[in-house]
Amino acid sequence: MKEYIEKAVQDYYAEDIAWCYGCGRLHKKGHHFRTGWLDDTNQTVTYYRPNEEQIGIPGFVYGGLIASLIDCHSMGSAALVLHRKNGHEIGDGTEPPRFVTGSLHVDYLKPTPEGALLKAIGIVEEIHPKKWKVYTEMFANDTLCAKGEVVAVVMPDTFIKK
Amino acid sequence: MKEYIEKAVQDYYAEDIAWCYGCGRLHKKGHHFRTGWLDDTNQTVTYYRPNEEQIGIPGFVYGGLIASLIDCHSMGSAALVLHRKNGHEIGDGTEPPRFVTGSLHVDYLKPTPEGALLKAIGIVEEIHPKKWKVYTEMFANDTLCAKGEVVAVVMPDTFIKK
Repeated sequence: MKEYIEKAVQDYYAEDIAWCYGCGRLHKKGHHFRTGWLDDTNQTVTYYRPNEEQIGIPGFVYGGLIASLIDCHSMGSAALVLHRKNGHEIGDGTEPPRFVTGSLHVDYLKPTPEGALLKAIGIVEEIHPKKWKVYTEMFANDTLCAKGEVVAVVMPDTFIKK
Repeated sequence: MKEYIEKAVQDYYAEDIAWCYGCGRLHKKGHHFRTGWLDDTNQTVTYYRPNEEQIGIPGFVYGGLIASLIDCHSMGSAALVLHRKNGHEIGDGTEPPRFVTGSLHVDYLKPTPEGALLKAIGIVEEIHPKKWKVYTEMFANDTLCAKGEVVAVVMPDTFIKK
């Protein structure tokens, strides 16, 4: 399995909303999380390899980083799915929708070892036209270490600075 | 109300577990969240002023940072309460207990404006001698912007590298 996403939804966010510390491609220092389709499935995926500073207890990845990964991965996953529902695919010249987080739930099942490639895999469910739920399993190498359940809300226009 | 914590529980964690990206006093680059008692109440508090890089949508604080703040604040809050239950106060020469996150839930009630001082206020409830629940309200200036519900678990000895 390849562990790189060729077309990520974050690559196509409008410029004024591409500055997120977690997933904004224009942010100079952020994590640059990138979310795309997992091969030809209806699942989404975000890969990330934490650096040695991103620890909680020495030897283990910081829980706040895992929460951040699951958060941005979920927003990107909802954007992918709604974009497709709207008849589009990323890279077809249309702007994908942008979501904000309504709620975030993470269960930390096992300590996440430092140095491993993290892989967040998501399934998206529509609960309202503007509200989507994203179920994520986060693996470190092949071990399931955390689960996420996130409510993503279509970003209200009031978020954009005029 | 003063907005500075004189004695934070993180100031007294043992050296080998004081490296957390969120709240480790020995971490060179992390957030250095610090958690203490809120005056003479049984509530806990963590203050933090995000920098201009820590944004989600321009103008608003990154949700992953808010999750990180609530996470470390909750671990620190549980440590304060268990330490007191054990007959100790921070700074009395004994080492406070150290917790790890079992689960993290954050409800994002309102967008958190950039530039504001964040104040996380916690109440801790024992659900098992080794498992505590921390309820947090996070304010930006005086506006309630997020709520947290976090399960903190006494850190197993296996976390410490020998």
